[in-house]
Order: sequence, then structure tokens, then C-alpha cells
Amino acid sequence: MTHKMILDLDTGIDDALAIAYALGSPEVELIGITSEYGNVLTERSVVNSQQILHLLGHPEIPVYLGAGHSTMTNDFSVLPISAEIHGQDGVGEIHLTQPHPDAASESAVDFILAACQQYGADLSIVATGPMTNLALAIQKDLPTLQKVGQIVIMGGALTVCGNVSPYAEANISQDPEAADLLFKSGLPVTMVGLDVTLRTLFTKKDTQEWRALATDAAKAYADMVDYYIKAYEVTSPHLHGCALHDPLAVAVAINPSLVTTFPLNLKTEVEGPSRGRTIGDNARLDDPKTRTAVCVQVDTPRFLNAFKTRIGQLLKAVK
Amino acid sequence: MTHKMILDLDTGIDDALAIAYALGSPEVELIGITSEYGNVLTERSVVNSQQILHLLGHPEIPVYLGAGHSTMTNDFSVLPISAEIHGQDGVGEIHLTQPHPDAASESAVDFILAACQQYGADLSIVATGPMTNLALAIQKDLPTLQKVGQIVIMGGALTVCGNVSPYAEANISQDPEAADLLFKSGLPVTMVGLDVTLRTLFTKKDTQEWRALATDAAKAYADMVDYYIKAYEVTSPHLHGCALHDPLAVAVAINPSLVTTFPLNLKTEVEGPSRGRTIGDNARLDDPKTRTAVCVQVDTPRFLNAFKTRIGQLLKAVK
Repeated sequence: MTHKMILDLDTGIDDALAIAYALGSPEVELIGITSEYGNVLTERSVVNSQQILHLLGHPEIPVYLGAGHSTMTNDFSVLPISAEIHGQDGVGEIHLTQPHPDAASESAVDFILAACQQYGADLSIVATGPMTNLALAIQKDLPTLQKVGQIVIMGGALTVCGNVSPYAEANISQDPEAADLLFKSGLPVTMVGLDVTLRTLFTKKDTQEWRALATDAAKAYADMVDYYIKAYEVTSPHLHGCALHDPLAVAVAINPSLVTTFPLNLKTEVEGPSRGRTIGDNARLDDPKTRTAVCVQVDTPRFLNAFKTRIGQLLKAVK
Repeated sequence: MTHKMILDLDTGIDDALAIAYALGSPEVELIGITSEYGNVLTERSVVNSQQILHLLGHPEIPVYLGAGHSTMTNDFSVLPISAEIHGQDGVGEIHLTQPHPDAASESAVDFILAACQQYGADLSIVATGPMTNLALAIQKDLPTLQKVGQIVIMGGALTVCGNVSPYAEANISQDPEAADLLFKSGLPVTMVGLDVTLRTLFTKKDTQEWRALATDAAKAYADMVDYYIKAYEVTSPHLHGCALHDPLAVAVAINPSLVTTFPLNLKTEVEGPSRGRTIGDNARLDDPKTRTAVCVQVDTPRFLNAFKTRIGQLLKAVK
């Protein structure tokens, strides 16, 4: 079966890897990218996604402008740590020169809702930034959103510590209220959190293999990811590589057997020192209508093999 | 196979249920009970365990005096909330009159170590209070403790909120350093935390069935558990019953198929607002030598059936 897929991205180096994973997967038809603020401003996310799509030979895929700030704020500034990890431009300061036309005229939320209406259970939404666009779509038209096949998010940390606090993961921490709304919406959500993404490491040895492919796209991806790995050497020296957060979410949407999940009704804490913590909702533990699943284990060798094969073939093939 | 079993208890109403579950299980030979402080003082825990053993027809099983306070303190007072849940005497103020001789002369730690030496892989230790006795045994002689077959603890909260704070479960919070030492010891530990115990509910309808058995033991257990349920009506009105924390740990030690577990290297936070939080140890996520498993799902109907059958038959049979 072909997955119609929407990627909801704050593009971002690992978001760029998510795009490549989707485009490199024969099971996926990427029907559009919606933008979020987060690693970069939402307008920059549009530009980065467009340039990446162009670089990878798919300039025809539309990119939609989405939320510019959280549901609880009126503006947004990129956090210094985000700029450190992804570069000022969000893609490792590799100075992409590909075209970037205006964003599609439809809003991100309207595109998401129209796709749910059109494709229903055949549609997968993979969200790897804050959950703001999804929250806005829930607020606008939950019944239409409920037609979606699945929503897979990269975000949260249930069984491990967070990465912006001991409790909170970065995407969720940008808009905890949006994530809480999503978890309590009854939508079919699979949470690909730090629980599993921190176990998927990519190293400079791997980027050298891309570099040897000698295409522009391969060189750009190697440069981007080397930048990302260098940032990890500062923030997480014990990892000896970078975590493949966002592409793992795409991979799980395509092939759930890569991970072990269990069903759990989730909430996001919105107050106190643990604002942004994703945790089981004790008040709904015995609610049998659990449509949220959390990934707690990942078959790392199998995922890494798929990641290297799919993205390697794509980077080699594009002119 | 018969399990040689040690129960490490701060007896407590649900500890009393753990004793009954063990005695009502043909697969178990209960070789001794070691005492902890927690729900009551450790001396009171000895008395309660002895009286319960006598009530249930097994006065011959030895009870050992264990830690009276945490590894980081010099004394201990019962928390008001513990006295509220378990009663001033720890067993629902039912005024047991059974004999309670002096504790066995050997210390709890020495008994545990001697049993590991003697029974090795045939020995199960089920600990349902603070982890202090186990920590002291680790400090005294880890190589001997490593001979144990399994350690099953009731304690912790990984995927749900705690019960003494949003982060910490009561047993772990009494001695977070002890729990941290246990999790990092390399011992084979299965954590039966609030993740699963909060899904095992017992109601006044169930205690009425015990009452109908018309033995002294059945009446005492019905009275105890009614007291416990009444406390839950105040502290957790949404549950509509009481959670079977400690007996679930015994059940899991006997029949691991009652729960779904996954392996995770754990730590206990010992500082800050989340002191006592049990969480994955991010620094050891990829350590393949994971000997700790966490229960995240429970087959509640199957467990409740085993619980009612085993304890019901025992309460009916004892004179």
C-alpha cells in the first residue's frame, strides 16, 4: 500500500533527513510539507523545505506555511541551543542556493484538513516539530481530522529524561498545551520520543559514505549532518554521533515493526518545573479507548540499515 | 518448579495481601520474611508479619528484623499519610491478638545473603517496601546477592505520575539512594510500579465474598481491606477501590506472563523536586547488559482471578 504522507516540519537538519527518508521510500507518496516554527522560524522552515525538495529532485511537492508561534504565545524566537545544533539557517550553514518560491496559498491547517477529507485512512501525518499545527487543526475541525489513518510524532520522553529539562523534550516543550490537546483528542497518535530516538546513532563514518557518492545532494547532506554531529559532540559527547530523531518517525509510520510500542493514555504537564513532561494520564489509565501508543524499544540495526539504504540510494540517484 | 521466596515487607495492609498470595500459591515456598520500615516502623512490621503468618496457619515461618531507617538517615517516623492508609497499627486497626515472638536472631541482611548462597537461582526476593535491606545487602556482599534468581520490587512509577509527588512513588521515595544503588547494581530486578498496580482494583464487593467464607482469617482480611478501601475513597476517589500493589509483585514473581515488560537501565533521581523519580538512565541506554525490566501492562482480569482464587482458598481453609 502507498502511504499518502504529510510531513509537518520545523526544518532543521534532522527534518531534512525526514524528507529524504520519505522521498527515498517507495511506499510513500509525499503529498505536501507543512511548516512549523521550532528549530527555525516557520518562514525559514518553508524556505528550507523547498530548497531541500529541489535538491532532492522533487520541487513539485507543495510546502505550506503553518504556525509561527505556540498556541499560548504571540511570537517566537529561535532558542540559542536550536541555532547551535542546526545552524543559523537551520541546515548547518551549508548555504543552499536552490529556488524557493512563495509558500502554497492554502494554510497548513487547511491543507491538513483537506487531505484528511480526501485520503482518510490512507493518510499518514508525521509531525516532527511542536504540535501547534495539529492543535489548530483539532480546534478547527476535529471530526475531519479523525478521518486520518495515523499521526506519528517525533516528540516527548516517557521512559528517559528530556533534552531541554530533566522532564521535557524540545518539540513538546515549545507548545505543551498543543501536545496535551493532541494526546487527549482521541486521535491515533504514535509517540516516537527520545525513548527510542536516542538509540539511533549516525556517525561521521556514515557521512563519509554519502560524500563518496559524489552528487551535489550527497555532499550537501554530508555537510549538513557533519554540522549536526559536531553540535552533538558539544551537547552530548557520550553519544559519539547524532540521534536520528525525525527520520525515525517517518520510518515508524511506514514500518511499525521497527519499534515496540505499548498503548497508554498520555498527557502533557503544562505547569510547574516539569512543564512539557509527557507522562501517562493517571486519570485515564483504565480508559479502554486508548488510541495513543508509545515507542519504548527500537530495532536499531534494522532501522539504520533502512535509513542508510533508502537515503543513500536517493542521494546517489538525484542529479 | 517451586520458588523459594523471601518477602521483604513493611507490613502494611497490602503487604499482608502479599503474604496471603504467597502462602496461597502452590508454586511458592515462603522461607522467610524480612522487615522494613515504611508503612509502619520496622519493629511493628515484624509483629504484623508474625501475627499475619499465625492467622494464616504458618507461625513456623521466620521473620527477620531489618532496616529501621533509610541509608541516608538515622531515624524514621511513619508519615501521617501512611498511618491514614494502613491505620496506626499498619493492619487497619483490626487488633490482631495472635502471638508475636521475638524476631529471628539473624539480621534481615544476613538471612537474605545466606539464602542467596544456599538457593541461588531458585530464590526469588520480592521487596515491597523501601529498598534499604537490599541496598545494605549489596553493600555487604554483592557477589553473593548476585546468585539470586530474581528480585521483584513493588515500587517506582515510570510511565505514570507518582503517588507522593508527581514524580515519586512512596516506597522509592523513602530511600531513593537505596533504589538507585539497586538499579545500578546489575542485579536482575523487575520493577512492578504504579504503571501496573494502579490498574489492579479490588472493591468492597470482593471483600464481602471473603466475609462470606466465615473463618477468622477471612473476616480479618475483609476488615483490613475494607479499611484500606476506605482510605482510598479519600485519597483516590476516582479509583472506586484499592490498588493491589504488593500482591501483584508476588504474582509477577510466580508468573511473569501476567505482565508485559521491557528492558531498561534505570536510575533513581536523588536531588531536586523530582527526588525519588524512577526513570531510564540516559547514560546507559545503549548498554547491552540490561538486567532491569519494567512492567508497563498487566492482564488485570487474569491477575484478579488468580488473586481471588488463591487468597480465597487460603482464607477458607485456615482454621
